Amino acid sequence: MPKNQQILLDNRPEGAASASNFKLVTSDTPDLQDDQVLVRHHFLSLDPYMRGRMNAAKGYADPQPLGQVMIGGTAGEVIESRSPKFPVGAKVVGMGGWQQYSVVEAGQTGALRKVDTTDVPLSHYLGAVGMPGVTAWYGLVKIIEPNVGQTVVVSAATGAVGSAFCALAKARGLSVVGIAGGPEKCKYAVDELGFDACIDYKEHSHPRSLTKAVKDACPKGVDGYFENVGGMVMDAVMANMNAFGRIAVCGMIAGYDGAPMPMSYPALILMNRMKVEGFIVSEHMEVWPEALKELGMLVASGKLKPRESIAQGLEAAPEAFLGLLKGKNFGKQLVKLV
Amino acid sequence: MPKNQQILLDNRPEGAASASNFKLVTSDTPDLQDDQVLVRHHFLSLDPYMRGRMNAAKGYADPQPLGQVMIGGTAGEVIESRSPKFPVGAKVVGMGGWQQYSVVEAGQTGALRKVDTTDVPLSHYLGAVGMPGVTAWYGLVKIIEPNVGQTVVVSAATGAVGSAFCALAKARGLSVVGIAGGPEKCKYAVDELGFDACIDYKEHSHPRSLTKAVKDACPKGVDGYFENVGGMVMDAVMANMNAFGRIAVCGMIAGYDGAPMPMSYPALILMNRMKVEGFIVSEHMEVWPEALKELGMLVASGKLKPRESIAQGLEAAPEAFLGLLKGKNFGKQLVKLV
Repeated sequence: MPKNQQILLDNRPEGAASASNFKLVTSDTPDLQDDQVLVRHHFLSLDPYMRGRMNAAKGYADPQPLGQVMIGGTAGEVIESRSPKFPVGAKVVGMGGWQQYSVVEAGQTGALRKVDTTDVPLSHYLGAVGMPGVTAWYGLVKIIEPNVGQTVVVSAATGAVGSAFCALAKARGLSVVGIAGGPEKCKYAVDELGFDACIDYKEHSHPRSLTKAVKDACPKGVDGYFENVGGMVMDAVMANMNAFGRIAVCGMIAGYDGAPMPMSYPALILMNRMKVEGFIVSEHMEVWPEALKELGMLVASGKLKPRESIAQGLEAAPEAFLGLLKGKNFGKQLVKLV
Repeated sequence: MPKNQQILLDNRPEGAASASNFKLVTSDTPDLQDDQVLVRHHFLSLDPYMRGRMNAAKGYADPQPLGQVMIGGTAGEVIESRSPKFPVGAKVVGMGGWQQYSVVEAGQTGALRKVDTTDVPLSHYLGAVGMPGVTAWYGLVKIIEPNVGQTVVVSAATGAVGSAFCALAKARGLSVVGIAGGPEKCKYAVDELGFDACIDYKEHSHPRSLTKAVKDACPKGVDGYFENVGGMVMDAVMANMNAFGRIAVCGMIAGYDGAPMPMSYPALILMNRMKVEGFIVSEHMEVWPEALKELGMLVASGKLKPRESIAQGLEAAPEAFLGLLKGKNFGKQLVKLV
């Protein structure tokens, strides 16, 4: 059996996360039992939710245990199999974690998903045609529930979720405005992803200035907002919401390090009869088939061209992850392991 | 035609509202035209939403115009009629405003509603079997959507909305916890209104202490919250919400005077996958018949015994209203005009 490089959570962050929270180790992969398969990971997905799991406090999920392999989505290939469902050579997506190989109980529902790489590259099953894509789909379709011609806004616009959100929104005849950090990302959002406009939040140090920028970009007001960041960006979009506006709360990356991040004007929820709803896509498995089908077609037809930031080698994962939390990535952040 | 005492909004508050914002005048009531009726008001309803209308900024409704009769719900009797729909002697509820008489276009949809005072006293049509009661009904039934055995919380518990909320919640097999100001109100909430527990927020100057009080009163956590006040009370309840908790946002009285009133931990919306939804009951006229029917039966059967604070005479309205904003009323605040 091959040697397996793994990254463990060694200790919990106090304030911002750092590379010293992680530890790289090498272990043996165990022999397979009946119904198990050995997957060689080609790609590891890095996602903001992992930061929440690093804290000791229970968030919406249990904390990542110390001394164990960091949780994470993986795409790879079955290289040994004692399960007829997943023969050697099958391309699969699962939650293998921050390591090169994983042994998976093939019979466990949802543990592994076989994917077809004819029209969709394997890595995209961790992004546009995977959890981030379905996240965008759920927030847009099930919470924002937009009508043709309405205006929707998404923060972290060029990320995996944001870019999928844009393609899904354009397919529904919506105006889509992004919020991202830096001129390069904003240009990319408009030129490549198809956003109608993109606001560079880094140009606005004062809430009033950012609020005006949202207003200028959304002359008819905002009907739906997909929240990835929280804080000042959330306040600025809320100030521009139309009556009966909907906010899908998917992430509040601005608050992960424990800094207080209030919502400045909750009275707007009443004044504009808004709905603000938090969700976790893994609790809505019933929508995945429909969402993945649409996302797969958008990618195969070229209407969704997801960008990827690819770090090389497992040992690069911690720095890539810390960069993601600071918005240094550009598109879906992956680690290539093969 | 009788002389008509009226109270106008004379100028807008800067900060807290005061008696000097209002002006008492006397005018003639005009002769009736075809299809008009003259209503003598027996009761004027005083409600927190009026404070929002006194501000110049557009909230969810247009501001109350200066120099005009203050908006307000009224219950009274038709004393002259040129409409076959509303004969002299009919008991009616409408939006007559802060005055003794009003001339109403009887044909205008929703302008007047005939009520039956056999089993329900006229004044209750401004409270438990009127707008406040339907407000409680909508928030509980349409937004909180509780399941039997769940725990719901309401702030301003002994007010017109809170007491109706309690009766509606008990009828659905829920645990109901109130939040009110002062030991007298809390005792009344438990002894007379049927709350399972009531928290005196005035005993808690620190958010942590109030949060613990909510926790102690709701050992199984909070599944639904009916928000009437905002501020620290909202934060304390949010900190105790269960996964998939719902908050119906009906009022944020704590913020009407322009003081900033942030929501301290909006990240809880994500962590607990909460839904926070604002509403105005006048935008949901389709539910009124069903809601009024249930509320009327609860009052007629004695299961909902609404308490009233009754000020005497129109000139007492401003002080009674200012008292309401400070929580000095006890139960539904009315002004008796006859």
